[in-house]
Amino acid sequence: MSRGLFITFEGPEGGGKTTQIHRLVDSLRSQGRDVLPLREPGGTTIGEKIRALLLDLAESPMQIETEALLFLAARRELVQDRILPALQAGRIVICDRFADATLAYQGYGRGMDLAALKALNAFATVGLQPDLTLLLDLPVESGLQRRKMDPADWNRFDAASLAFHQQVRQGYLALAGAEPGRWRVIDAARAADVVAVDVWRAVGEVLAVI
Amino acid sequence: MSRGLFITFEGPEGGGKTTQIHRLVDSLRSQGRDVLPLREPGGTTIGEKIRALLLDLAESPMQIETEALLFLAARRELVQDRILPALQAGRIVICDRFADATLAYQGYGRGMDLAALKALNAFATVGLQPDLTLLLDLPVESGLQRRKMDPADWNRFDAASLAFHQQVRQGYLALAGAEPGRWRVIDAARAADVVAVDVWRAVGEVLAVI
Repeated sequence: MSRGLFITFEGPEGGGKTTQIHRLVDSLRSQGRDVLPLREPGGTTIGEKIRALLLDLAESPMQIETEALLFLAARRELVQDRILPALQAGRIVICDRFADATLAYQGYGRGMDLAALKALNAFATVGLQPDLTLLLDLPVESGLQRRKMDPADWNRFDAASLAFHQQVRQGYLALAGAEPGRWRVIDAARAADVVAVDVWRAVGEVLAVI
Repeated sequence: MSRGLFITFEGPEGGGKTTQIHRLVDSLRSQGRDVLPLREPGGTTIGEKIRALLLDLAESPMQIETEALLFLAARRELVQDRILPALQAGRIVICDRFADATLAYQGYGRGMDLAALKALNAFATVGLQPDLTLLLDLPVESGLQRRKMDPADWNRFDAASLAFHQQVRQGYLALAGAEPGRWRVIDAARAADVVAVDVWRAVGEVLAVI
């Protein structure tokens, strides 16, 4: 059975994940490759409904553990319903955030126990790990400044404190440092064209191996 | 700090949980006791939204593990936001289904790993266990027959196979047998007035102790 490639994008707010994913998908498709872009939370019928609950600023305040479980529910559905079948069909799956985001945001950011979150993640992902995770890293202030330019994208994660976002960034860097074989840290404070070159190189290295 | 009492009602479909809870709440209140009736999933803003997702027959088919995680998200919110504060205030909390329902329905009923579900439950409940769990037990056929009389209550759990409901019932009986100190098994195939006497007696025994 052929096995595809699973690539995830992670990083603080305003790092340009959406832009870079669009460019990468276009580049891979122009090579004739079969690519499935997904986002988390979302990507399934129930996942998009969960996404709406999570991003609903005013109506649904909730405990951070509840929030984590909702992310995990959307993740389990995405893995089982979309990602695993696509990988089994040999496709390239590119996901905007995945399990590492739970560790960075709910763990490092909000202080939930990392061991508990890892156990919950193992259940939600059915043990699936990305082949490559690209961390689009940049100073928190720069990222939030970029997001403020687009009020339509403003959500309650942006509204949280600067200190929280600093912890998230440091969490991502810690995760990347602990698993250098899977992660590539890319300086996302540079122009999108320059960042795209690094993204393409990192993906090319993995594609050359499989 | 005073500590209230946490009572849960469990059992297969059509066992009359709603009716018995109403009667019990009325009886306790007529004694001047401070009672908080809740239901699962639900009982909080986000919990009721999750309930709507779970009971949405047509639009949101989902994996059983996703379903379990959504129940757990609603449970965590209910415990942290409603149940624990009420118990700390010395109130009597009565909940229509709780963590045991996950073991009975997703575990025994749908075949999910019981150890994994217990670990997830421990996280969702913050380790909270009911002081008393009343199992309103009756033959599956009788219960489903009762539910069919009220199409407004018909939902996708009722639509599942008879074999599934048999497994759920046997699961509940196994759980009750393993923890006789917490559970009381009540024959719910009898008239509601008769069942109510047994419910009142079981609750009275626990009230006499605290």
